[in-house]
Order: sequence, then C-alpha cells, then structure tokens
Amino acid sequence: MSEKIVTACVLIIGNEILSGRTRDANLAFLGERLNALGIRLMEARVVPDQDEVIIVTLNEVRRRFDYVFTTGGIGPTHDDITAECVARAFGVPLIQHPEARAILEAHYPPGELNQARLRMADTPEGATLIENPVSKAPGFQIGNVFVMAGIPSIMQAMFESLKHRLTGGEPLLTKAVAAALPESYLAPGLTAVQERYPEVEIGSYPFYRMGVFGVRLVLRAIDAGRLTAAAGEVRELVRKLGAKPEDPDEK
Amino acid sequence: MSEKIVTACVLIIGNEILSGRTRDANLAFLGERLNALGIRLMEARVVPDQDEVIIVTLNEVRRRFDYVFTTGGIGPTHDDITAECVARAFGVPLIQHPEARAILEAHYPPGELNQARLRMADTPEGATLIENPVSKAPGFQIGNVFVMAGIPSIMQAMFESLKHRLTGGEPLLTKAVAAALPESYLAPGLTAVQERYPEVEIGSYPFYRMGVFGVRLVLRAIDAGRLTAAAGEVRELVRKLGAKPEDPDEK
Repeated sequence: MSEKIVTACVLIIGNEILSGRTRDANLAFLGERLNALGIRLMEARVVPDQDEVIIVTLNEVRRRFDYVFTTGGIGPTHDDITAECVARAFGVPLIQHPEARAILEAHYPPGELNQARLRMADTPEGATLIENPVSKAPGFQIGNVFVMAGIPSIMQAMFESLKHRLTGGEPLLTKAVAAALPESYLAPGLTAVQERYPEVEIGSYPFYRMGVFGVRLVLRAIDAGRLTAAAGEVRELVRKLGAKPEDPDEK
Repeated sequence: MSEKIVTACVLIIGNEILSGRTRDANLAFLGERLNALGIRLMEARVVPDQDEVIIVTLNEVRRRFDYVFTTGGIGPTHDDITAECVARAFGVPLIQHPEARAILEAHYPPGELNQARLRMADTPEGATLIENPVSKAPGFQIGNVFVMAGIPSIMQAMFESLKHRLTGGEPLLTKAVAAALPESYLAPGLTAVQERYPEVEIGSYPFYRMGVFGVRLVLRAIDAGRLTAAAGEVRELVRKLGAKPEDPDEK
C-alpha cells in the first residue's frame, strides 16, 4: 500500500458551538464529502472567537495537514474575525479584495452596501475567492486553507464551489454491518478478522436504544476485494453468534 | 473582574465522527452543562482511533486546561484504545481496576464476563472510577482528565455521576435575542453596544431558513445587571431597525 494519503483538518470557529447553544452540522458533511474525494479528515478542532487561539491553531494545523477547512466567523459583525486572523496567521495584510467588492456591489441595491457588509470583501492579500451562490459574500482560499461560512447551507454551497481545487488520493471504500448483539460478544472474533485483514480498518460502534444493545461495524479500505472479503467474514461472525447481519444504511 | 475562569477541553475520540458516519451529540451537551457549573469549554478536538495522536493531544490539552473530558473508545473491542492511551500519556501502567472488575462481576451472569468484557475493567494505575448507571462498565478519572463513553445516553449518565467532583467559577449568564434581520443591518449598532459593554460577550449568529435571513444575538456575562442592560439595548436596536426582538428560546 504505497498510495499517498491526503489529509485534512476542519477548524470550527465559534463560541456558539462551544457553549452548546448551536450544534455543529458541518463536521459530518465535510468528513463524508472529503472521504468521497479521497481526502482523509484526520482531525477537527472547535475554537472560540479569540484571535490568538485561532492564529496559533491555524498555524499548527495548516503545517500538519494537506488541507484545512475553516467554518464560521466571516460575516459582517464585530465578532467575525476569521479573515483578519487568517491574514495574521499567514503574515500578510488584510485587504479589500476587488473581486469580492464587485460581487457585493452587484448583489446589493444601490446604497445598501454599508460599511459592515463591505467587511465581507476583506481577505488576506493573495487569497482567491470561493463562490457563494446562496448569499453572495464569498469565502476564500489562501495556501492550503479554505475559509467558509458557518451556516450549513452556505458552507455546503461553498464546498461545492471549491471542491474542483482539491486533489485526493484513492478514496476509502466503506462497508457497514449492523447487529443486535452487545459488542463484547463480537470482540474476540472481530479481533481475529482485524488480524487477518490489517489493511482494512474495522471500527465497532455500539449503540443503545430502547433498552437494546446493538453494534454497527464499519469496515474501510482502499482495496475493494479485501474489503468485501473482510465484510463477508464479519457477517459470518454475526451469524455464528446467532444474530442477523443487517445493512445499517438501509432505511 | 478578578474571578478565576475555570476552563475545559473536550476530546472526542473516534474515526466514526471524522468519517461523517456518526454525528457527534456529546459536545453540545457538555458545553451547556459545563457552562451551568461555571466551567468554560474553551476548545474541543476530534481525533481518530490512533494511539500516538490521542497521547500527544491529551498531554497537550490536560496541561492547557483545568479539566479535560474525553468521549469514546472505552468499550470491549480492539479499536477501544482510550484507556491504554491515557495510561501511556500519564506514564503509568494500565491495570485491572479491582473495583471495576467487581462491578462487572456483579453485573454479568456467571460465565458471561469474557476476556473482551474484562478489558472494560482496565484503567491507568491511580485512576478513580466514574459510575455508569446505564450499562455498568465504568469510566474513570485520572488527574484532571475524565474518561467517558461515547454513546450519548451513557456519557450523559457518567457526567451526572462525576459532576460533584468539579469546581467551577461564576457561571456565565446568557440572554438571547432573535430578529428577522440580516446581520449586516445590525452590525454598526451591535459594535456600539459591544463597546459600551466590554464585559459582556456579544455573539451574532446568522441563520438562513426558507429564503429568510435572521440572526440570533447571544449575550453572555457574569454580572446579571450589566447583562440585562446590554440585552435591553440590543432589543432597542432591533426595534429601531423596524423588526421585532424575539426570544429564540421560546418554542
């Protein structure tokens, strides 16, 4: 297995997520979409709207991972400090991006492009824009960092706009098996399958619903043949333990 | 404002969250509950089931924050490596905790406490247990690190079991105002309120639903009087802009 693994980190910026008032909806979307592009989401961080924390974190993760995606903090209000922080992290000035300004000018009726809205045209010098088909104010890319809105519908549209810029490796293929069994029944057999298929990542995710313990077994690998073989063994294991292997993605 | 700010970090362990298959449900719960105890959740990290990453991350965050809460990776299967990683991070051996073993022995019918289940009695040496009223297998605390299950119902029950061990500062009080206005209309007025109330943290969180832009303004402070005054000014600002200030928590 000599393929290059392409990695990513998501940086979620916002007090609102940390206070528990808003439940993040972007991480799961990005994890899934990146995986489909052959990019492995290796880490995510949630940080508050504090400039020093954002700058230090961004500088750490942009060096460790191939791609960094940020969400949040690019609106028109005083607490939207992401663009400024990204500029400081890269050591470049924050400028009014002429193309971004033109987009906002074309979008707002005459006289409506106030000072606050104009802040949304500010980017680090050297950034390229990320189109926002929903509400126009663009995101931007600088180096390997992609800066997107926090509102899920806008973030998702921005991701669609930028994804042609990403170069992934081989995507990880996935097979999942669910069983109404406590995970501890499966553990010895699963360990044995894992040992026979070291190139297949086997995750065991218990759940507990209405008094019943069950488990979802998720297998991931680049090689489709080995993945299918390992999943077959897992299904066989579930059957041997007296349960029915089910497809958790069938709804 | 000389009160000590008590800080926390949440460490979410699991490939499943990063792949997007499972949407985390623990962060919002912990952020809210910690805040009510006067503990500020300052950061959250999601890391994969990889020992080196877990160990390095844990050693970083347990030094930076007053409390660290981990979720995930304490079950009976091969991919449950949290206890071992925590032991290695603290530089202590992983032992079978006698009290944890006794709990499992009392819980499972004779002959059912297999090798896999016994793994759930392993803790770093010196750890104290966290009771699990749902499925018995305990979490544990070592130093300022609290290790909990990933299944939300179990994690929540464990948090209830451990919270008397936490010492918070003054809780941040919150007031929220919603308005059907684009955030850019509010921006200049909000900046002015923020300048008059530097001790009140004012967050502006836009939303976009069914073609309508709106915003939730969240004010947080320790001083109830200042918080009420600032929230009054924000409501007045919304009214001046021709909208009706609403209570977003009224449902």
